[in-house]
Amino acid sequence: MPNIPPDALERLVRDTFVGWNTPADDATWVAAMLVRANLRGHDSHGVIRVPHYVRSLKAGETNPRPKIQVEYETPTIARVDGDLGFGQVVARRGIAIAIEKATAQGLSAVTLRRTNHVGRLADYAEIAAAAGLIGMVWVNAPMALNVAPTGGAARRLGTNPHAVGIPGPNGTVAMSLDFATSVWAEGKLKVKYARGEAVPPGIMQNAAGAPSTDPREYYGDPVGSLLTMGQHKGYGLSLAIEVLAGILSGTGAARPERGAVQNGTLMMCIDVSQFVPPADFHAEVARVFDFVRSAPLATGAKEILIPGEPEERTSRERRAHGVPVEDETWRQLAECAAEVGVTPPGVR
Amino acid sequence: MPNIPPDALERLVRDTFVGWNTPADDATWVAAMLVRANLRGHDSHGVIRVPHYVRSLKAGETNPRPKIQVEYETPTIARVDGDLGFGQVVARRGIAIAIEKATAQGLSAVTLRRTNHVGRLADYAEIAAAAGLIGMVWVNAPMALNVAPTGGAARRLGTNPHAVGIPGPNGTVAMSLDFATSVWAEGKLKVKYARGEAVPPGIMQNAAGAPSTDPREYYGDPVGSLLTMGQHKGYGLSLAIEVLAGILSGTGAARPERGAVQNGTLMMCIDVSQFVPPADFHAEVARVFDFVRSAPLATGAKEILIPGEPEERTSRERRAHGVPVEDETWRQLAECAAEVGVTPPGVR
Repeated sequence: MPNIPPDALERLVRDTFVGWNTPADDATWVAAMLVRANLRGHDSHGVIRVPHYVRSLKAGETNPRPKIQVEYETPTIARVDGDLGFGQVVARRGIAIAIEKATAQGLSAVTLRRTNHVGRLADYAEIAAAAGLIGMVWVNAPMALNVAPTGGAARRLGTNPHAVGIPGPNGTVAMSLDFATSVWAEGKLKVKYARGEAVPPGIMQNAAGAPSTDPREYYGDPVGSLLTMGQHKGYGLSLAIEVLAGILSGTGAARPERGAVQNGTLMMCIDVSQFVPPADFHAEVARVFDFVRSAPLATGAKEILIPGEPEERTSRERRAHGVPVEDETWRQLAECAAEVGVTPPGVR
Repeated sequence: MPNIPPDALERLVRDTFVGWNTPADDATWVAAMLVRANLRGHDSHGVIRVPHYVRSLKAGETNPRPKIQVEYETPTIARVDGDLGFGQVVARRGIAIAIEKATAQGLSAVTLRRTNHVGRLADYAEIAAAAGLIGMVWVNAPMALNVAPTGGAARRLGTNPHAVGIPGPNGTVAMSLDFATSVWAEGKLKVKYARGEAVPPGIMQNAAGAPSTDPREYYGDPVGSLLTMGQHKGYGLSLAIEVLAGILSGTGAARPERGAVQNGTLMMCIDVSQFVPPADFHAEVARVFDFVRSAPLATGAKEILIPGEPEERTSRERRAHGVPVEDETWRQLAECAAEVGVTPPGVR
């Protein structure tokens, strides 16, 4: 498995997308977001997606030069039509609008529709947090279903994630939360499947709606389904996200039709300075984090972490030593690059 | 166990609070909210709270005649100081402001501080939904801690619930979600404790941070702690709620000091008509609910429910046949009433 320096990986991905008619600035952004996911240890949202994105560009499902339009706006609200652009490109525009409105008005809500896979939600919540705002993001994927409702034996929901970013002082991010409302994201199951390993109980069920620990039953014919986190609680939140992100954005909620992945998205920003003096806010956030960390350790636990800390550590590690890219992924990346005349960097 | 007609129960509770110097209108509201929780089957948030509330009134911790003040406001934001009033009374004011602002501006955020136990969050999300808005509520309780962070062996968080109300057509509520970020609310554990029964694994741990199924270890000396739903996911959401509801409201986040329960609260409302024509919104909500319900049943499941449906059913049942009140609770209610010269209704 090669370890690729993040800069070289970004350039490779950028040049590949430029080769598919993506403007350099947009290609740079999408590449940076994909590599950022790898740096943070979320490889399922990293460069492994490049071949999918290239296929989507070839199929005309992703528009490399979208005319992103604000279809409607008020001082606090905007509805954005992404013109089937890269999700990351549309989301960058969306969060910029949300930040601008919340900075001026204290509060904002921006929806995105007709947009491809937006990538890791935490990125956008963190961009808001770095601007001194609380950022909240909800996303559905109405034609990429993999999760069963509580009591159901078939896929009726996406993994419908929710992210919250909390600002720290001086443009830092104090906390970054990003979770799927399924117990596991589908990518984790795929890794177990590829390795021929079982998953723990409580993650998935087979096509008959019986508990299963065998990923082959998830990918079988008929297919199995993922379960929701916290049973009915995660189910309820997931269904709420179908409404918040899917219906409000005009993308629509989960439906039986299959199609290209589109992420209905709702982003909200809150300016903390409208509620508490920022210095008091930051001091109280630091205090409660210290208080939480002051608990004695539970049996088997090594430490108590604040959401976002594991990602920060992995990021430092991978910035120093490179991003490990699986051989097969690297082969596919090189193939995608070669197709548009781009030469991948030499591999150690 | 007596079955009390809801109207008679409401009158008894109202008259008791009036006897403690609460204005009739406020006492009627608090009584209605408590009985509403009983009607919906959430007895832990129902009239069982009356003796606590009376103790709090006697101790001067609840102010029966608060001067509720809007400390700060913009067209979309309000910060409310509850002057230590009944939580339900302060939350009624808060949600009214949030509805007014969101109806005018499309979006609103209202915080509550210096307020007592606000009761069942769903009530306020449902009031917003009945007004055609999406209502979202988050609450912390910084001095009533019972939940351990992931990896920790001690109480560092409240049960920090989150509620979402989705509007239906013509002033109806399409969906009402209200969940604690702990696996179980503390009230459920208390019932098991009272009955001398064990709880399932994954609900709680003992004071040493080892998994436990014995509620006596939760209420022991030293105390145990509840676990978060979906492990680190519920922990992350709970910590975010400390910030959203506790810090933004000026109530503060979880802390070691013990004191009277105060609920830091954040309420947000979204006017769906700013995003989608209401008829389209309602049609799409109904469609996705039908789609979710159309899944075949999982092993052992009887049906697939939409959040809020179980409560609606219990409410119809209890409206018809009365609210079952445990003998000890009824004895205490009668005692609280008698203390201020109120005679409880005859019991079947």
